[in-house]
Amino acid sequence: MTGRDGGADLAPTGNSPVVILVRPQLADNIGAAARAMGNGGLFHLRLVAPRDGWPQEKAWRNSSGADRILDAATVHASVAAAVADLHHVFATCPRPRHIIKPVLTARGVAAELRLSCARGLRVGVLFGPERAGLDNDDMAQADALVRYPLNPGFMSLNLAQAVMVLAYEWWTAVDQTVPRVLMTNETRLATKGELDNFLAHLTNELDACGFLSNLPKRPGMVRNIRHFFTRGEVTTQELRTLHGIVTELTRGRRQLGRIEASE
Amino acid sequence: MTGRDGGADLAPTGNSPVVILVRPQLADNIGAAARAMGNGGLFHLRLVAPRDGWPQEKAWRNSSGADRILDAATVHASVAAAVADLHHVFATCPRPRHIIKPVLTARGVAAELRLSCARGLRVGVLFGPERAGLDNDDMAQADALVRYPLNPGFMSLNLAQAVMVLAYEWWTAVDQTVPRVLMTNETRLATKGELDNFLAHLTNELDACGFLSNLPKRPGMVRNIRHFFTRGEVTTQELRTLHGIVTELTRGRRQLGRIEASE
Repeated sequence: MTGRDGGADLAPTGNSPVVILVRPQLADNIGAAARAMGNGGLFHLRLVAPRDGWPQEKAWRNSSGADRILDAATVHASVAAAVADLHHVFATCPRPRHIIKPVLTARGVAAELRLSCARGLRVGVLFGPERAGLDNDDMAQADALVRYPLNPGFMSLNLAQAVMVLAYEWWTAVDQTVPRVLMTNETRLATKGELDNFLAHLTNELDACGFLSNLPKRPGMVRNIRHFFTRGEVTTQELRTLHGIVTELTRGRRQLGRIEASE
Repeated sequence: MTGRDGGADLAPTGNSPVVILVRPQLADNIGAAARAMGNGGLFHLRLVAPRDGWPQEKAWRNSSGADRILDAATVHASVAAAVADLHHVFATCPRPRHIIKPVLTARGVAAELRLSCARGLRVGVLFGPERAGLDNDDMAQADALVRYPLNPGFMSLNLAQAVMVLAYEWWTAVDQTVPRVLMTNETRLATKGELDNFLAHLTNELDACGFLSNLPKRPGMVRNIRHFFTRGEVTTQELRTLHGIVTELTRGRRQLGRIEASE
């Protein structure tokens, strides 16, 4: 799940939310946030009053190739200036404040961001500085707060990790990947008939070698073998291998049979 | 969504999956991975042949207080040794390999991990080294692969980010947080009757000041005002404020009326 493969296909496609880092302290985190944005298909980065100025070479070094996101980032003096052209603004906030505001989960805000972007609206998400988080004036600029459901006993979330969760939810909000699939490459899943064919081969050989010679127990033993072979999916390639294994394992007995017959 | 609040309540509760970092290169990433584990309620960390040995002070410095996870981490010479006592093993893998294996999404594996843990099974997830990822022998140790749905144009996912997504999905798999809720603190959502009461107050004052004096247009104007005030949720505290605003804004006219009447 790591490595620098995959290149940097970071061209903005369609309308996507703006990530707004408010008074970020560490250029490393800005770079890591840009990388996380790229992972989740987010492209638009705005910085409000970065503590150490901008640009910072360290950000590019820590972005693993998300250069285009950093190259296109804009710097703003205030949150108000950074959100002036946006229609909806959300503010990430780990702790409930004494304010009256809608609060969304990460999945909830991803769904709303998708709907707003589909309407052609410009939307953004505010992330606070590493230590203090967003202040009350920052949050008053937002239509709603975002609080990730996470371990309440350990809420200390790194800035880039916070961006990662949003980017991941933004991407998966429209992702159609099946939760579990058997990757079969050039082979394919075997049918029940193909499995039966193998089990018949195996059972014949087990009859021949005497493994199933206890006739009262034979039906149960055959069923148990079938239970094992039907527990997981099997491919046609694997069935060919299993046929081959049975054939090879029985070769000695068959050769012995021929020798005995010829004596 | 950042800051070092929240302490470090990292006591393992119930059966939870083991995170296995295979040949990790950077102690910084091991620390960041431990922090991400804490965020998502994962506690059990195993290291297979960490490149720079173990323990590494840098890991603790970069874990933001997830010390107990690092303190309890165990080191193993091989993947086989690290998974020997586990019942199910999953391997994260960003790129499809030429192998026949079930492939799960992050959400899919979180659901399976929850089911396995509920059955009392011991389960683990392998994460590969930063640059190369898991090799084919590592993956042969796993029951299934995990591939996160992310931007195929930029799959370069940091190790700690990969752990973060798993930890986040593990936590949210059983989380019941409502996707959107109005945080009202000590006030509460107003009823339609309470809103009507305010709109009647406002309409009376608008009649008195002449704002609604165009009688053919009056019904439509009143409806439009109602449309605005019903677009979002409103609390009883906010209605009291709105009542006060209307009362204060009309004070001058009422005082003027008294002065004119007394003249």
